[in-house]
Amino acid sequence: MENHSVIAIQDEYAEDFAWCYGCGRLNKEGHHFRTAWNGEETVTLYEPKKVHTAIPGFVYGGLIASLVDCHGTGSASLALHRKNGFEPGSGEAPPRFVTASLHVDYLKPTPQGVILKAVGKIEEIHPKKFKVKTKVYTGDTLCATGEVIGVVMPASFSK
Amino acid sequence: MENHSVIAIQDEYAEDFAWCYGCGRLNKEGHHFRTAWNGEETVTLYEPKKVHTAIPGFVYGGLIASLVDCHGTGSASLALHRKNGFEPGSGEAPPRFVTASLHVDYLKPTPQGVILKAVGKIEEIHPKKFKVKTKVYTGDTLCATGEVIGVVMPASFSK
Repeated sequence: MENHSVIAIQDEYAEDFAWCYGCGRLNKEGHHFRTAWNGEETVTLYEPKKVHTAIPGFVYGGLIASLVDCHGTGSASLALHRKNGFEPGSGEAPPRFVTASLHVDYLKPTPQGVILKAVGKIEEIHPKKFKVKTKVYTGDTLCATGEVIGVVMPASFSK
Repeated sequence: MENHSVIAIQDEYAEDFAWCYGCGRLNKEGHHFRTAWNGEETVTLYEPKKVHTAIPGFVYGGLIASLVDCHGTGSASLALHRKNGFEPGSGEAPPRFVTASLHVDYLKPTPQGVILKAVGKIEEIHPKKFKVKTKVYTGDTLCATGEVIGVVMPASFSK
């Protein structure tokens, strides 16, 4: 979401977990991906910077993978938060997911200079494990598809 | 490869194709991943920056995905270049691959402040399509495994 009038799940991550290079609001140099509900789907909007190039004119695949990654963990967080009875804006800190696996299929060269739209569908595969299938569009063109398996952050991530 | 006495395949990409945010030597703000042969395997070394965090103390998964991605396309380029009779340093521009698919399994939280070592094994699955299986280590610890399907850059990437 580049629309800041919408509350994204990352806006409410607990401060200790809001430093991610992809989606942490406190990481000044990061991408600041923001993910919100759109009906039963989730959406993340992001316009890559000029430096995020693969071949000049086309978006770097690693940036698209990063978008799919954080959109996936954000979507899983939205889903478990809703299951727990909360929506972004409720004031409750949402559950923080990490990525167990990430897959991206690059279908078409993705042009630079336009906003990427990641649209996610979420499936619970275990109370602490969610699958998020994502489609990445530029305009109406489907450029990539992705899948993230996200798990609730294990204790091994705490210091 | 952070050892600049070794010639990496990315050192020899044609100038038009050396702007990748992950591995382009001409992209001043990019990661400058560099991939070289080590016997029959390929190696890319990289120490993530402090900003490349997921949860403080641990490396951002999207950065690991980017490493697997460019290590994969670089490895495929090394392999086809060798098949064509050339090694880095020969002066011939190597073939440039793009990513058809990328998969990463995150096995353990990856600590920050240490060099990541990506080690690749390459399989030709078609004269213009290579599979690269990658293991990402910190020291002796296997933190992630990955797989890239790389294809020789199609004409749709030229402007």
